[in-house]
Amino acid sequence: MTLRTGSEVFDWLDTRAAARAKAGLTRTLRPRPETATVLDLAGNDYLGLTRDPRVTTAAAEAALAWGAGSTGSRLVTGTTDLHAELESELAEFCGFPSALVFATGYAANLGVIAALSGPGTVLVTDEYNHASLIDGGRLSRAETVVVPHRDVEAFRAALAGRTRKRALVVTDSVFSVDGDLAPLAELASACRDHGAGLVVDDAHGLGVLGAGEGAAAAAGLAGAPDVVVTTTLSKSLGAQGGAVMASERVIAHLVDTARSFIFDTGLAPSAVAGALAALRVVRADPLLPGRARAVARELAQRLSAAGLQASSPEAAVVSVRVPSPAQALEWSQRCRAEGVAVGCFRPPSVPDRVSRLRLTARADLTPDDITTAIDVITRTAPA
Amino acid sequence: MTLRTGSEVFDWLDTRAAARAKAGLTRTLRPRPETATVLDLAGNDYLGLTRDPRVTTAAAEAALAWGAGSTGSRLVTGTTDLHAELESELAEFCGFPSALVFATGYAANLGVIAALSGPGTVLVTDEYNHASLIDGGRLSRAETVVVPHRDVEAFRAALAGRTRKRALVVTDSVFSVDGDLAPLAELASACRDHGAGLVVDDAHGLGVLGAGEGAAAAAGLAGAPDVVVTTTLSKSLGAQGGAVMASERVIAHLVDTARSFIFDTGLAPSAVAGALAALRVVRADPLLPGRARAVARELAQRLSAAGLQASSPEAAVVSVRVPSPAQALEWSQRCRAEGVAVGCFRPPSVPDRVSRLRLTARADLTPDDITTAIDVITRTAPA
Ligand SMILES: Cc1ncc(COP(=O)(O)O)c(C=O)c1O
Ligand SMILES: Cc1ncc(COP(=O)(O)O)c(C=O)c1O
Repeated sequence: MTLRTGSEVFDWLDTRAAARAKAGLTRTLRPRPETATVLDLAGNDYLGLTRDPRVTTAAAEAALAWGAGSTGSRLVTGTTDLHAELESELAEFCGFPSALVFATGYAANLGVIAALSGPGTVLVTDEYNHASLIDGGRLSRAETVVVPHRDVEAFRAALAGRTRKRALVVTDSVFSVDGDLAPLAELASACRDHGAGLVVDDAHGLGVLGAGEGAAAAAGLAGAPDVVVTTTLSKSLGAQGGAVMASERVIAHLVDTARSFIFDTGLAPSAVAGALAALRVVRADPLLPGRARAVARELAQRLSAAGLQASSPEAAVVSVRVPSPAQALEWSQRCRAEGVAVGCFRPPSVPDRVSRLRLTARADLTPDDITTAIDVITRTAPA
Repeated sequence: MTLRTGSEVFDWLDTRAAARAKAGLTRTLRPRPETATVLDLAGNDYLGLTRDPRVTTAAAEAALAWGAGSTGSRLVTGTTDLHAELESELAEFCGFPSALVFATGYAANLGVIAALSGPGTVLVTDEYNHASLIDGGRLSRAETVVVPHRDVEAFRAALAGRTRKRALVVTDSVFSVDGDLAPLAELASACRDHGAGLVVDDAHGLGVLGAGEGAAAAAGLAGAPDVVVTTTLSKSLGAQGGAVMASERVIAHLVDTARSFIFDTGLAPSAVAGALAALRVVRADPLLPGRARAVARELAQRLSAAGLQASSPEAAVVSVRVPSPAQALEWSQRCRAEGVAVGCFRPPSVPDRVSRLRLTARADLTPDDITTAIDVITRTAPA
C-alpha cells in the first residue's frame, strides 16, 4: 500500500509561480524597520498623521484602557463607547445622519454592496473601481454592468437600459492608481433621473478633498438620502478600519444584514481611538487637506517638466507611467536604493494593465523632501 | 419641472426592516463602557488575554513606536519587522513552514479560498461553515458542493463524484455556534485518497486545542503539504487580524494573488504586537488552553444538570438551544440585567436557524464567576 502524503496536491502552484516570474509579476514582502530609513512617498498616510503623537498616544491609551481587541462581533461584545463616538463624529463631519465602523474598508465595501443590492438589482460600476467594490459585486449576485472610466453618458445608458427594477451606481471618488476624480455630481444627477442609488468609495477622498470632509461634500451630496459613502480609516486617518456614512435607514439595514459586519470581529479599540484622534486633528486644522493637494500638484508639475508621464492630480496621488512591469520594478528599486520609497503598481493592481510608479503627496513633506524626491525619481528614470 | 431628491430610492429598506422586526430579528448595537459592568461570557477572548497587561502594553508600545496604522498594502509599505516576527513565530508554533498575516480573519478566508480554487475547482464545504468561508467560495467562482455537517462519507462521495480536476475540502475546525469539532484526520485522509487539498479555519481552535497549537496539530496534520490553516488573531490571541499557515509555495501564491491581501491595508502594528505578545503568553503557559476547555465542560455539565439543552463542548464554546429568536433575545436580556453577558445567536448567525445562547468559557473565569453564571442563566430561563 502506498502511504499518501498529499505532497502533490498543490504542484499546480509551481506552474503558476513560474508564469508570474516570467511576466515580472513576482512579489516580495520587504519588512520595514521601526525607524524610517527612506523618504516615504509610497504609503497612503496623506496627512502624515500615522505617527503624529496626538494619534499614536490616543491609540496607545485605548489599547491600555480597553484591551488589545474588541473581543467579538459588533453585534455581541465588539461595540465600545469609542466605536459609537467615532461613528457620531465621522457622520457629523461628513454631513450624514449616521455612520457605521467596519473592521476594514474592504469589509465596508463588501458589506454595503451586497446588503444594498442582490439578484433584483443592477450594479453599474466604473471599470477602474477598487478590488473591494468588484468583490462586493461578485458577492451580491446582482447583475453587473461595467462602464468605461468616468463616462457619465455610459452610466446613463446602462441605467436607462437596465433589466432589473433596482439599480446602484458604484464608483471610487478618487481612483487609487492615478488619483483622478469621479464626476460625482453628474453621476448623482443620472441616478436621480433613473431612480438609482449611488455608492461612493471615498477611501482616497476623506481627509484630502475640501476641508477633509471628502468627495460627497465637495460634490454637494453630503447627507443626500440616495447616496451611501464608504471609506477607510487607514489612509488620511492614519489608523485601520472602514466606515460607511448614510441615512439612518441604510445604516440600520447594514447592522441587520451586512455579512462582513455581522460575522466579523469589531475594529480594535486602538484603531478606533487613533482614527478618532486623527479626525479631530483634521477638524482643528482645515488647511491640512489643501496642503496635501498642493504637494501633489507640485510633484506632478516638476515630474512633467522633467519629461516624465505624470498624472494631473486633483487629490493627493501622483502616478507616473512606465512601459513594462519589469521597468517599473527596477525604477522603484533604484529610487529606494537612493533613499526614496515610491509605490510600484503592476498588474493586477492596475486596471488598464499599464504599470506605474505611484507617489503619495503627504501634507507634511517639506520643500527639501520634494526636491529630493524629484531629483531621485528623475535621475533614476529608465532611459 | 420636479426637483428630484432621490429620497425614495431606498424606500424598499423600510419593508425589509418591518419584516425583520416582525420576525424578531432586529439588531441593536449596545456600546459597552470602558470598565466592565457585567460578567462577560459573550466575547471570544478565550484565554482572557485581551486585557492582559503583557498584551495591552505590547500593543500600546507598538502604536507609539510604529504608528497607529501600517500605511499601505502589505506589498507596498504595510509590512513591518513586527509582521515578519509574528509570521515566523506563528508558523513555528503551529508547525507549518510559513505564515501570512491578513487584516482580518475574514479577509484571510476570502483570500485563501479564492486564490487556491477558481472555475476549475470543486469546493466541498461543511454546511455549517463560517460566513467568511462561504463568501470566499462565492468569490472564487468554483463549483461548490455543500455536504451535511461533519459527514465524512458525504465529503468522500462529493470528492469521488466531482466534475472538475481540482478539489478543496473546506471546514471550520471548531464550529463557532456549538463549539463542536470537525473530523479533521478523517477529512485529511479522504482528501489524500482523492487528491484534494484541505483548508481548515482554526479561528476557534488556535489557543484552545492541545497546548494551543490548534486543530491541525491536534489531528496530526501540522506541516502537512496539502493542508492550509487559516485563523484569526482576534479571539484567543486577544487582538485583531487574521493569518494563514501553510507550505512556502502556498504562502508565496497568496502574496502574489490573494485579492484580500494585495488590495487591503496591512494590519495595524498595535494589533500585530498584541497578538505576538499573546502568542508568547500561550507558549509560556501550555496549560492555559486546557483551563478554557475545562471551564467549558463544567459550564455545560451544570447547565445540563439544570435541565437546559446545552452542547457537549470539546473546545471553549458552550451553546444552549432556545425555541425562538424572541425567547433567545429576552433570555439574554434578562441575563444581562442580572449582570451576566451571554451571546444571543439568531438567524442569520445560526446555520440551522435554531436560536441559541452562546457562552464563552474563558480560561480566567473563577469558580465564583462560574457559579454566578450558572445561577443567573438557569434562574432567567424561559418557563
Ligand atoms: C479605493 C479603495 N477602497 C477600499 C480600500 C480598502 O480599505 P482598507 O485597506 O481599509 O481595507 C482601499 C485600500 O486599501 C482603496 O484604495
Ligand atoms: C469560524 C470563524 N472564521 C473566521 C472568522 C473571522 O475572523 P475575524 O473576526 O478576525 O475577521 C470568525 C469570527 O469572527 C469565525 O468565527
